Amino acid sequence: MSHPIELPDTGRPVTVYFHSELDDPLAWAQILTEALPDLRFLTGPACDSPESVDIALVWTPPPQGLNAFPNLRAVLSLGAGVDQLQLDSLRNPQISVARLVDPTLTARMVDYCKAAVFYLHRNFHVHQRQQVRRVWKFIAPVDAGTRRILILGQGVLGAAVAVGLADEGFHVSGWSRSPKGLPNVKSLCGENVLAPALAESDIVINLLPLTSQTRGILNRGFFSQIKPDTCLINVGRGAHLNEPDLLEALDEGKVAAAFLDVFDQEPLPPEHPFWSYAQVHVTPHVASLSDPAHSAATVIENIRRAMNRLPLVNAVDRSTGY
Amino acid sequence: MSHPIELPDTGRPVTVYFHSELDDPLAWAQILTEALPDLRFLTGPACDSPESVDIALVWTPPPQGLNAFPNLRAVLSLGAGVDQLQLDSLRNPQISVARLVDPTLTARMVDYCKAAVFYLHRNFHVHQRQQVRRVWKFIAPVDAGTRRILILGQGVLGAAVAVGLADEGFHVSGWSRSPKGLPNVKSLCGENVLAPALAESDIVINLLPLTSQTRGILNRGFFSQIKPDTCLINVGRGAHLNEPDLLEALDEGKVAAAFLDVFDQEPLPPEHPFWSYAQVHVTPHVASLSDPAHSAATVIENIRRAMNRLPLVNAVDRSTGY
Repeated sequence: MSHPIELPDTGRPVTVYFHSELDDPLAWAQILTEALPDLRFLTGPACDSPESVDIALVWTPPPQGLNAFPNLRAVLSLGAGVDQLQLDSLRNPQISVARLVDPTLTARMVDYCKAAVFYLHRNFHVHQRQQVRRVWKFIAPVDAGTRRILILGQGVLGAAVAVGLADEGFHVSGWSRSPKGLPNVKSLCGENVLAPALAESDIVINLLPLTSQTRGILNRGFFSQIKPDTCLINVGRGAHLNEPDLLEALDEGKVAAAFLDVFDQEPLPPEHPFWSYAQVHVTPHVASLSDPAHSAATVIENIRRAMNRLPLVNAVDRSTGY
Repeated sequence: MSHPIELPDTGRPVTVYFHSELDDPLAWAQILTEALPDLRFLTGPACDSPESVDIALVWTPPPQGLNAFPNLRAVLSLGAGVDQLQLDSLRNPQISVARLVDPTLTARMVDYCKAAVFYLHRNFHVHQRQQVRRVWKFIAPVDAGTRRILILGQGVLGAAVAVGLADEGFHVSGWSRSPKGLPNVKSLCGENVLAPALAESDIVINLLPLTSQTRGILNRGFFSQIKPDTCLINVGRGAHLNEPDLLEALDEGKVAAAFLDVFDQEPLPPEHPFWSYAQVHVTPHVASLSDPAHSAATVIENIRRAMNRLPLVNAVDRSTGY
């Protein structure tokens, strides 16, 4: 694979600094330097020439912080979100920031949510608990259209999940700050509509951006508004969820089952109670991850744009955080 | 709901005898007598006037056998298959037989298979076993198109499942006696092509009709041909599967996971080893069941046809058994 690219003559090679606990540095180094043979690809805490770094390609900020690079032009997130980058602490306002949006990443998030929703729709979580007690008890299957699914967040991922589930015949509502016009998806806006929507939803999927408004939104007050036996799918951020409050809601039977892919602390510590809850499905942050083979083209395009002081693809508004 | 219907004047009310371990007699009685107020609806072993029975609406033969009704005109199956009716022992060749085909029944089978396939596709079965050991271990998600799914049987249900999974982007092959032309589904015919297809399939779904040729087809010889870590979904009949051979294949790690909805003996006896296998998902014959609200119209039409000696909708060829 080769991506022809022209970078302006800066008198020195364009330098990318890479940092991620989740992504593979070797795969990224290989695919970027194949496309841009002159590129310098740096990673690891011992970066001896921070002033040479033009671009940060990162999941979370490196230990030395992003302000350690005085000539940084752009921060390219390795994820669909940027909340984990702590952009508030980024001092230089000239630095542009982009999220990673690639169709594969989106398709995988849709896949994950379909897997969890179909599992719950077909009552596999109930049958699984019956199986442990060797109970053969018929539960009549119902039409997908009778299942009300509420998706919190209607960004790129939330919208794709909403449309994907609506296409399967589920009754889908999407909650967001501004109204959306997605086919067969009921658009819900504003604080006032959330409580009535929660009271009638069978499955709630969290795909909100993480901001000061949404941090800890899945808390005791939230769980007090859902209807009994609601199922929760958290594929947003661990910090959206108040974990002790979910444990309480599970213990009280308010929440019947939860698929959790993100956690306050990752990896989830071995002593965490989630591991041993039969109603909780723990997955190790696998719902959606950027694959260099699929997302390199966008990253390369953004390197080119940043070096030419052009607006980035999938640019983030640093004032709103998404 | 009312279905206007005219029955020929037989001089006595049309009589339907109902028998099923799975279906609800009251729901069927209500919906049929609402549509046909003169209908006599009988059920239970103590049928004191067997000579009055015109139609048997049954899942399995009643204890007294179907030959107990000397004036029987039609046997209407409550399921998509008729193998459970033991038609070979039905003496009167004039009795016509019909399967139940309704869109809801088909849609529910597709739903069940999607739920199981997406679960396996997203490696939830692997994560579930890691969760028990509190292991956080990333498994890279893959494109649906890399998953090879083989569907045994391409009747009404098998074809619908094949098309449904192909629409989701999976790589789907369908094995049947005669070639099919379903969109994006590879048609495989004949004994010779089965072994190579098994050797490259990730998930095998059984939806064959149960005949003398297919009884016990999922046996040791079959499991010796699959590739390691294949997953099995049996939504055909319990008698397709040699249960001890599957246990052996699970113990040897040949089969990674199984979704089983049908069994040799139903309800599955409490002492059966399937209940305690972590790799086995037991569901109590819920994949697809006729819903009177959806399938009554076809049953009523077949009652009308049987009383008028007309060919039935979804008639079964008693010589081939499907």
